[in-house]
Amino acid sequence: MNSHRYCVVMCGGVGSRFWPFSRNDKPKQFLDFFGTGKSLLQLTVERILPVVGIENVILVTNRQYRDIIIEQLPGVKESNILLEPARRNTAPCICWAAHHILALDPEASIVTLPSDHLVLKEDAFRQAISEGLDFVENGPRLLTLGIQPTNPNTGYGYIQQGSGVEGWPGIRKVKTFTEKPNLEMAKMFLDSGEFFWNSGIFIWTAKTILNAFGKYCPEIGNIFDAPDATYSAPGEESFINEAFPGSPSISIDYAIMEKADNVFVKTVDLGWSDLGTWNALYETSPQDEQGNASQNCKVIAPDCSGSMFAVGGDKVIVAAGLKDFIVADNGNALLICPRADEQKIRQIVNEVKTTFGENFV
Amino acid sequence: MNSHRYCVVMCGGVGSRFWPFSRNDKPKQFLDFFGTGKSLLQLTVERILPVVGIENVILVTNRQYRDIIIEQLPGVKESNILLEPARRNTAPCICWAAHHILALDPEASIVTLPSDHLVLKEDAFRQAISEGLDFVENGPRLLTLGIQPTNPNTGYGYIQQGSGVEGWPGIRKVKTFTEKPNLEMAKMFLDSGEFFWNSGIFIWTAKTILNAFGKYCPEIGNIFDAPDATYSAPGEESFINEAFPGSPSISIDYAIMEKADNVFVKTVDLGWSDLGTWNALYETSPQDEQGNASQNCKVIAPDCSGSMFAVGGDKVIVAAGLKDFIVADNGNALLICPRADEQKIRQIVNEVKTTFGENFV
Repeated sequence: MNSHRYCVVMCGGVGSRFWPFSRNDKPKQFLDFFGTGKSLLQLTVERILPVVGIENVILVTNRQYRDIIIEQLPGVKESNILLEPARRNTAPCICWAAHHILALDPEASIVTLPSDHLVLKEDAFRQAISEGLDFVENGPRLLTLGIQPTNPNTGYGYIQQGSGVEGWPGIRKVKTFTEKPNLEMAKMFLDSGEFFWNSGIFIWTAKTILNAFGKYCPEIGNIFDAPDATYSAPGEESFINEAFPGSPSISIDYAIMEKADNVFVKTVDLGWSDLGTWNALYETSPQDEQGNASQNCKVIAPDCSGSMFAVGGDKVIVAAGLKDFIVADNGNALLICPRADEQKIRQIVNEVKTTFGENFV
Repeated sequence: MNSHRYCVVMCGGVGSRFWPFSRNDKPKQFLDFFGTGKSLLQLTVERILPVVGIENVILVTNRQYRDIIIEQLPGVKESNILLEPARRNTAPCICWAAHHILALDPEASIVTLPSDHLVLKEDAFRQAISEGLDFVENGPRLLTLGIQPTNPNTGYGYIQQGSGVEGWPGIRKVKTFTEKPNLEMAKMFLDSGEFFWNSGIFIWTAKTILNAFGKYCPEIGNIFDAPDATYSAPGEESFINEAFPGSPSISIDYAIMEKADNVFVKTVDLGWSDLGTWNALYETSPQDEQGNASQNCKVIAPDCSGSMFAVGGDKVIVAAGLKDFIVADNGNALLICPRADEQKIRQIVNEVKTTFGENFV
C-alpha cells in the first residue's frame, strides 16, 4: 500500500431530508441503514481500507459527533478526527484536511469521500480510486468521479465531459458543472450521453488542492494559511477554533470545481446512490409486485403500491390504501408523506422543531 | 344508598378493533383513552359509585387481567373480582355474576355495564340507572337502556320500542332487537323514530335474570345451576374453573333479550358512544377546520382532511396528503388505514398475529 495516500471522510452533515431516521444527534451516516449491523460511515471506511491504511484515514466532522465516531471506529486514532467548531459546508472542511495532511506528508495524495453514500460495486470503486490517485500523482490535476446516469434525476449535480486524456482511458476534461437541473434539462443531459452525475468523490494531492484554494478561493485559502508547524501539531485545535467559524459556508464545487481549469472526471459504474432522499433509498431497495419497498421492517400493506416503509426497531406497520407514499417511523417521530412531496421534508422538519422543540428533530 | 343494589362491570373483552392501542395484554378498557389520567374502566366505576357502593361493584373479567384490575381499582375487594377461565362472550359472564350476587343477597337488583364506553352526561346516566332499578325492583322485568340515535350507524344493534308502561314514563315494551343493519335499513330505522341503539347496559334483579336463563337459555342456565353454598363461598373458584369453559359462547342479547317476553327499554340521552371503533372515536373527538381529529398527540398535517391521529406517548406525527384516514401508532405497531376500511382491522390484527406473532397484538 502506498503510504503517501490518504482518505478524508466527511461525516459532519445533518441529513435532515431523512428525518425521522436521521436526527440532529445521530445523522444518517451513523445509522445502520440497511440492517447489516454497520453504519454507513463504518461501511465507507471499510470500503476504502484496501486502498488507504487506517492510519491514513482522516475524519472531518462536527464537534458534536466526536463520541459517536470514536465508538463506531475504534481503530481510528483520535488525532485523525478533525472536529469542526461550526458547520460551513464542504470547502473549508476540505481545505483544513488538506493542510492537516500536508503537514504530515508533503507528498500526500488524497481521496475525499462522503460518509453516507451507497456503493454496491466495491471492487470497481477501489479500482477507480486507485487509478484516480495514480492520475493526480502524475500532475497538478483535480479529479472527480462521475457516475453514469440511469435516469433523469433532478436531485443530483451533473458534470459534462470534454476531451479525453492521452494515456488515461476513462478520464476526460470537465467541460461544465451543472447544479440540480429541472426535469426537461435532466432528460436532455441523459439523452446526450455527455453528462454524468457528480458523485462528490474527489481525488487530488494536498499540494494541488491547496494551490487551487489560493488561486480560486482565496477567501477560504487565506483563512487556513497558518504559520508553519500549526497543522498536525499541538496548536492546531485552538487555531481552528479561532479561524474556522470565520470561513464562508460554501461547497467545494462552488469554491473550486466550477472555476478551476484543471478539473477532470473519471466516469465509473459503482452501483452508487447518494441516499440523499427517501426516494433515492426507495429506488435502490427491492420492491414487491405492487412496487412497495420496506427497509428492514415488518409490513402488511393491503391496497398499497409504490410505497416505501421504514421503521426503527422491531415494529409492525399495517398500512392500507397508500399509493406512492413514504412511511418512516423512528423513535418519537412518524412521517407519512407522498413520495412526490419529499422535497418538503426539510421544511417540515423545521416546522416540527419550531412547533414541538429540538427533541423531535 | 340502597344496599340491595349491585353493579356488574364486564371488563374481559379484547377490543381488537382498537388495535394497536388496544392490545391483548392491555385492552382498551384499561387505557387512559382521553388522556385524563384515568382508564375507561376507572371512569366507568367512578361514574356508578353515587348509585352503587364500591362494596357492591362486581367486576367480571378474564383471568389474565386480574393484576391490572387490582392496580387500577385498589378500592375493590379481591372477592368482588370474578375471573373467567375462558372467553365465552357476555351471557355466561352475566349468569355467573347473577348467581354470585344472589348468594350474597337474595333481594339484589343489578345494573350490568360495559367497561369501555363513553358517557358524557353522567347525571342523566345515574338518574336513568336509578329509575331503571326502581322499575325492575317492582316486577319481573328485564330492562335495557336505549340510546336516541343521531345517525344511521351500521355498527350498533337497534331496539324497536313498543307500547308504553303505565306509571313509568320513558319506559316501553321492546318489540324487536335487530343486529347491525345495513345502511339502508339503518336510515329507515332512524327516520321511523321507533328505533334506539342498544347500549349494552342492562338492569334486572338477580332472581329475574336467573329465571330468564332457566326459561330461555337452559344450556347456560344448567351449567351454572350449582348446589347451594357454591357461590360467594370458598368452592366457587374451583366450580367455575370446571364448569365455565363448558358454556357456549353467546351474547346476552342472543341468549335472553331477543327471546324473553318481559323485556323493556328505557330511552335515554347520555352523550354516549360505545367507542367500538376508531370512527366512533373520531366522531366524538373535536375536529379542526379540515375535519382532522387528534387524540392527545402532536400532529402536523398539511393537505390532510377527515383524518384521525392517535399516538401512544410523546411523539410527533407528520402526515401529508391523507384524506379520511386513521393513523394510530402505539408501542411496537403502527396502523394507517382509510376510515372507510376500519371493519377490516379485526381481520388485519389476526394477520399480524399469524405473520409476526402474539407480541404485536
